[in-house]
Amino acid sequence: MSIQTTMMQYPLTPVHFIERAGRYFARVEIVSKLPDGTVKRTTYGDFHRRARALASALTAAGLKRGDRVATLMWNHYAHLEAYFGVPAAGGVVHPLNLRLHIDDLTYIAHHAGDRFLIVDDCLLDLAAQVSKSVKFERVIVAPLSGAAVPPGYEDYEKLIAGAPAGFEYPQIDENDPLGMCYTSGTTGRPRGVVYSHRSTTIHTYNSAMCGGTPLTQHDIVLPAIPMFHVNAWGLPYSCTMIGASQVFLGPHLDAITLLETMERERVTCSGGVPTIWLAVLAALDREPNRWKLAPGLRLVVGGSAAPEAMIRGFDRHGITLIHAWGMTETSPVCTAAPLKRHLETLDEDTRYAYRAKQGYPYPFVELRVRGENGDVPPDGHTMGEIQVRGAYVTERYYGVDDDPEKFTADGWLRTGDVGVLDDEGYIKLTDRTKDLIKSGGEWISSVDLENAIMGHPAVAEAAVIAIPDPKWDERPLAAIVLKPGATATADDINTWLDGKFAKWWMPDEYVFIDAIPRTSTGKFLKSALRERFADRPAEGKPPRS
Amino acid sequence: MSIQTTMMQYPLTPVHFIERAGRYFARVEIVSKLPDGTVKRTTYGDFHRRARALASALTAAGLKRGDRVATLMWNHYAHLEAYFGVPAAGGVVHPLNLRLHIDDLTYIAHHAGDRFLIVDDCLLDLAAQVSKSVKFERVIVAPLSGAAVPPGYEDYEKLIAGAPAGFEYPQIDENDPLGMCYTSGTTGRPRGVVYSHRSTTIHTYNSAMCGGTPLTQHDIVLPAIPMFHVNAWGLPYSCTMIGASQVFLGPHLDAITLLETMERERVTCSGGVPTIWLAVLAALDREPNRWKLAPGLRLVVGGSAAPEAMIRGFDRHGITLIHAWGMTETSPVCTAAPLKRHLETLDEDTRYAYRAKQGYPYPFVELRVRGENGDVPPDGHTMGEIQVRGAYVTERYYGVDDDPEKFTADGWLRTGDVGVLDDEGYIKLTDRTKDLIKSGGEWISSVDLENAIMGHPAVAEAAVIAIPDPKWDERPLAAIVLKPGATATADDINTWLDGKFAKWWMPDEYVFIDAIPRTSTGKFLKSALRERFADRPAEGKPPRS
Repeated sequence: MSIQTTMMQYPLTPVHFIERAGRYFARVEIVSKLPDGTVKRTTYGDFHRRARALASALTAAGLKRGDRVATLMWNHYAHLEAYFGVPAAGGVVHPLNLRLHIDDLTYIAHHAGDRFLIVDDCLLDLAAQVSKSVKFERVIVAPLSGAAVPPGYEDYEKLIAGAPAGFEYPQIDENDPLGMCYTSGTTGRPRGVVYSHRSTTIHTYNSAMCGGTPLTQHDIVLPAIPMFHVNAWGLPYSCTMIGASQVFLGPHLDAITLLETMERERVTCSGGVPTIWLAVLAALDREPNRWKLAPGLRLVVGGSAAPEAMIRGFDRHGITLIHAWGMTETSPVCTAAPLKRHLETLDEDTRYAYRAKQGYPYPFVELRVRGENGDVPPDGHTMGEIQVRGAYVTERYYGVDDDPEKFTADGWLRTGDVGVLDDEGYIKLTDRTKDLIKSGGEWISSVDLENAIMGHPAVAEAAVIAIPDPKWDERPLAAIVLKPGATATADDINTWLDGKFAKWWMPDEYVFIDAIPRTSTGKFLKSALRERFADRPAEGKPPRS
Repeated sequence: MSIQTTMMQYPLTPVHFIERAGRYFARVEIVSKLPDGTVKRTTYGDFHRRARALASALTAAGLKRGDRVATLMWNHYAHLEAYFGVPAAGGVVHPLNLRLHIDDLTYIAHHAGDRFLIVDDCLLDLAAQVSKSVKFERVIVAPLSGAAVPPGYEDYEKLIAGAPAGFEYPQIDENDPLGMCYTSGTTGRPRGVVYSHRSTTIHTYNSAMCGGTPLTQHDIVLPAIPMFHVNAWGLPYSCTMIGASQVFLGPHLDAITLLETMERERVTCSGGVPTIWLAVLAALDREPNRWKLAPGLRLVVGGSAAPEAMIRGFDRHGITLIHAWGMTETSPVCTAAPLKRHLETLDEDTRYAYRAKQGYPYPFVELRVRGENGDVPPDGHTMGEIQVRGAYVTERYYGVDDDPEKFTADGWLRTGDVGVLDDEGYIKLTDRTKDLIKSGGEWISSVDLENAIMGHPAVAEAAVIAIPDPKWDERPLAAIVLKPGATATADDINTWLDGKFAKWWMPDEYVFIDAIPRTSTGKFLKSALRERFADRPAEGKPPRS
């Protein structure tokens, strides 16, 4: 007899969490420090009522299935409502990164076909600039400051208050789109991906595992990443599913505000990029006894590699830093680096070395590291490109033709990150593919060289780039910025590096410059450096050492 | 522009966990106390190799997609291999409850159409009995005792050792069947449900939340429920996904073995029925200092309602008991009763009252309590039938025509459990629908009356049943077993109950009997009592008090 499952078909969608939160977590707080500095306290009970009302109002306003609703908002209760209310109306929520250049913002909103815009009142000037070339049908303004919404705009609060009663959720196909996000690549135009209800649900479960120390209903979570930055790594979804309290800081992500808020709200978990945590650690080191933080506080770090010293530094304050890794194309969280149980008995240095890696994958994410001859051995030092596939990994870009540069023929995403794999399955990032130096058929990590050079006491910062070489294809050149008043010669730096790397890794040239060019998000703009030093190679010059 | 998700299609299947466990948790232990008492230590590395080999061997043996493979096995490493190896071959794993009566076992194996059987060597006699009327094509024997497998049977170890190399996983449709389970209802024939890869995956995520204190890779989990009892509540799947260590006890579920094993293996989490934990608590109370258990040990209890006193009792030993609820039809775990954060500041009695409830639902499970006029108010005392729907709830029984008794017209499973709902969304079970007493249009909980009567010092046990009544439709009758040597009259018991319940709840009659008839699984067989006392009602007799 042939057999089929007897289980119900039930869609996987975060929209489910609206009713769940309203029914089971109605008293749990959502705390928002607004752009003007005032603190507003709401609950999941409010969230439930208002997210439904938003969905009802958007439906009444003519929002159709698949229509995009952009947001230009900081982190706060209203942005959370938009995260859920837009998809509950069948729409696609599209948080715009308000830190992007206006040209990119305009391009993105236009390319995504955003139909409506929801914007913080303090960001109306920016919205007006975008609106010059993107004709949003409606611009809905959240009057966070309490001031009246200017003429010509809709008032978010009035929209909520006037929403038709009796809203019924639409039938949701879990493969329908739920949200969009664009990459802010350093090369070419930003590219968009479209998350589905299903992919976001699986990501929500994984995100709730929170790097090996899962979120529970007892957690009080402060996402120290903007909600326009890959959905704040999914924390708004996972907190709402679990019933964890959420604390939002609007634009106030300075170290002192973070620490004061963590103390006051008894925050148990947060997530942010290394620069945020570096500032927090510095503040803690300056005044170790100033803030009484919740015991067991854990911080997830991602976005770029965090130095091991930062993990050690937080441990001294009783705070656990957990490394995670992902990207816009992967929803984002793919891996995290909690220390496995059997590794806990290793010596301290080895333990920290593991924790400074980017970790091993979550369920339903597959990861491989590919060199020129297929999978690299898991030896901890052979580099390859990190490739992933899984339940919340994109297989293409929105509105872009097939791109063999970004996807392999057998269906994996080429992340553009280069790393090594160890025999426990932890990856460690060593470079970006485009920044890697390919010399004599071997790979040299620009990041490893930079980190070593930046260890020299006279060096403020350093970027290592590939320059063309007729014999070796490429050779490393180090561009160095010295600390104010400090001096060092090329020979000094070369001596400093000597013994730390294989001979053929050593840079051919050291150039001293005033500043490393940076992108709008603060990353090294190595393409500008490569252009500047493109004509640099001395023909046929042998490697320096 | 119309929009579609850009995310990959990636099936949700626990088969994914085989490679995951082999790659990332290869050194994590699986500890099995075998039926003969010896302890065997293996790892997820072994599991990975052997589960794949089993899948390869079954495929080579002609197992086709959807074919059922029954198991007659205790809890141990080989049963875990079958849990994953059978679905990895495209088959459906069907653990047979070896405690059932042979007639039921035979009926179930026949009804399910089990093609192969995998059996522990110590259970061969039982297998031979089943085989008399069920013609398994192959009977594969796990030689756990080390003795040679008798002629006429296949040797599980030889099957694994001889499996063809180069196994490739089949393409799995997540809605394909993965496993089967039959209810052991007290009325009528057992009925089967068919879990899918997808439903089991979602259940695995929820089961890993472990009643509010999620499983992590650091956990050492001892499922004190048989793997033939609704898949040991999903723990074998969730542990394998997370990389938690698993400890199996075969048939050895007595309190002393449990406690000794928990101490030796540093077990951090377990799950079992109230009778198991009652025995463990008694042993701890007798010898509070004998076992040094892991700090933070948590026990999940389910299967039937655990008394509040048991929760208090374990707290005295520093062990947290968490109540959960579910059934075969729901994979099984639907709800759990962790104390919400804002309830922690309530007084002790209130906190325990919450923890003794069955809790609120996991994500993607919806629950409602229906009285005769629709949803009951969430007032904590109005009873109704608990109905559920969700991502791992059955919508029918395998090979059975539509059953309006078990499913509502709008698509919810009627659980047959009666309960009340409070304004925090916690349910508390009060009865089974078939045991509930409907008197004068109101409901009386047989369970509440029984518990109160069993509080009388002279009473060993009591069962309260409905007897027909011409005026009130039904009235309660209490069947009481006195403790050896104890005496009590109907008036004594009536006085004992007086004031504890509304007047109209008070039993009309108290009858003293020698023993309460029980089912094979130890539950009260109230149908037998109802039959015995069917002619009991005094015509038109008014309620006693």
